[in-house]
Amino acid sequence: AVHGARKMEDYGRFLALLVSALLVGFVSVIFSLVWVFHYREGLSWDGGPREFNWHPVLVITGFVFIQGIAIIVYRLPWTWKCSKLLMKFIHAGLNTIAMILAIVSMVAVFEFHNARNIPNMYSLHSWIGLTAVIFYSFQLFLGFAVFLLPFAPVPLRAALMPIHVYSGLTVFATVIATALMGITEKLIFSLKNPAYSASPPEATFVNCLGLLLVIFGALILWMASRSHWKRPPEENAKVLQPIGGTPEGTEAESTMTDGSNADKSDLRISSEAARKQNLKLDEAGQRSTM
Amino acid sequence: AVHGARKMEDYGRFLALLVSALLVGFVSVIFSLVWVFHYREGLSWDGGPREFNWHPVLVITGFVFIQGIAIIVYRLPWTWKCSKLLMKFIHAGLNTIAMILAIVSMVAVFEFHNARNIPNMYSLHSWIGLTAVIFYSFQLFLGFAVFLLPFAPVPLRAALMPIHVYSGLTVFATVIATALMGITEKLIFSLKNPAYSASPPEATFVNCLGLLLVIFGALILWMASRSHWKRPPEENAKVLQPIGGTPEGTEAESTMTDGSNADKSDLRISSEAARKQNLKLDEAGQRSTM
Repeated sequence: AVHGARKMEDYGRFLALLVSALLVGFVSVIFSLVWVFHYREGLSWDGGPREFNWHPVLVITGFVFIQGIAIIVYRLPWTWKCSKLLMKFIHAGLNTIAMILAIVSMVAVFEFHNARNIPNMYSLHSWIGLTAVIFYSFQLFLGFAVFLLPFAPVPLRAALMPIHVYSGLTVFATVIATALMGITEKLIFSLKNPAYSASPPEATFVNCLGLLLVIFGALILWMASRSHWKRPPEENAKVLQPIGGTPEGTEAESTMTDGSNADKSDLRISSEAARKQNLKLDEAGQRSTM
Repeated sequence: AVHGARKMEDYGRFLALLVSALLVGFVSVIFSLVWVFHYREGLSWDGGPREFNWHPVLVITGFVFIQGIAIIVYRLPWTWKCSKLLMKFIHAGLNTIAMILAIVSMVAVFEFHNARNIPNMYSLHSWIGLTAVIFYSFQLFLGFAVFLLPFAPVPLRAALMPIHVYSGLTVFATVIATALMGITEKLIFSLKNPAYSASPPEATFVNCLGLLLVIFGALILWMASRSHWKRPPEENAKVLQPIGGTPEGTEAESTMTDGSNADKSDLRISSEAARKQNLKLDEAGQRSTM
């Protein structure tokens, strides 16, 4: 009973964090819309400032909010009864949407710059932003080839999973840092009379948007890095538990859960040797996952 | 022999990353000095631009480079024979130096702003930067009170360690994001003819400094989040291993190493029950550490 109560408490804590993250992410998107519609020129695809305005809106919606959700989608307890393959499709799908929005948001800036003869790619924001998009595409391609397609051998998957997790979280953090640089640039360039330094309402409002992005990132990173909130191992792996395994044993196994379990469901375990190797891979994955 | 070779290979990989991180961090500090001495007015404490210049130099030296080293100091294999308490002092000492440099760097900006009647605390950079310094001070105070002083009970230490690790890494990442915003601001404000958008040599040089900071952060986060590079458990805990424990057993135990081992050395283990509780806390720490 104490065990169950602790589990419930932990579940409640997860839900509270999830609701907070969704709320903060959603409010960030709303803030970006209020920024461009109330304080700026609105949205349109005409080569002018209204085309530029798609940039913050699409980055915050896609590259921050949707990417954040994609990161924690395996953590949602009610998805644990869904097949791992379905969850992989959702994870890959959300990341693909995020990447498309990120690319469209870049096109908006390039077209705006070109229409006004403003140089492209001169700022640190653009350097790091483009690097993040390139890494993100690479991550998506590699994730698709190794973890979604059925061709990669299990040891390769187990070896790449910690790198996949690390680079995913690092790119996510870098995207938020890049958004903060973008906000800084845009407020300096567009607030002239009164200037950014005079703290007009737009400056304070968009600074708050920046704070929200940091809070959203911090919430997602916390949820993603708690290993006891990971998706439990697949059923076909559980079947291989020794009969009479205690609840403690089951729980201990679920703490070993990480991406490498993705591969477990794909394993056709037919012998004790395969089972042992499987557990060894689990350990390897566990040791090197954030 | 295969086991030993794998250990050596892993050690070599750690050393390569450590040397890379030290190099990138050191080059970042050099770049900040070249920036202020070659491209800007130099350093002095006179209320003018040369006082402002202390800000990037001290932030990059203290708040980025020294904080980064402080984060991975427990990971250095040759320190594992030193007492845990000594390592805690080094960790706390480096973080204290970093905080002092961060505070002095803020004083430099405030004095510069006040001498020129530039408003303080209007930018997103200043908002997030000050928040990071406040969280960092809080983290340092709490770390000192809970993990360095001998008063906190072991369960409290075990419960707080994952939060300590998470908030330490999050503040570190936030500091780097803030530095990138600061670079963006400074280049826009100080490059006028030619402007930042014309990519004069200073712009390209300082953009490279920004990239170096991101690479440094990514290296430190990778090293800090590989659990198999954690400091192994204390000797007094090892003594309690069953006699005849295999090398595999020892290695498996070392994978459970994390901050909660900090508490192990303080435990006066006198009974089997205490040993069991100790192992349980280890597990708890492991599950919730990044």
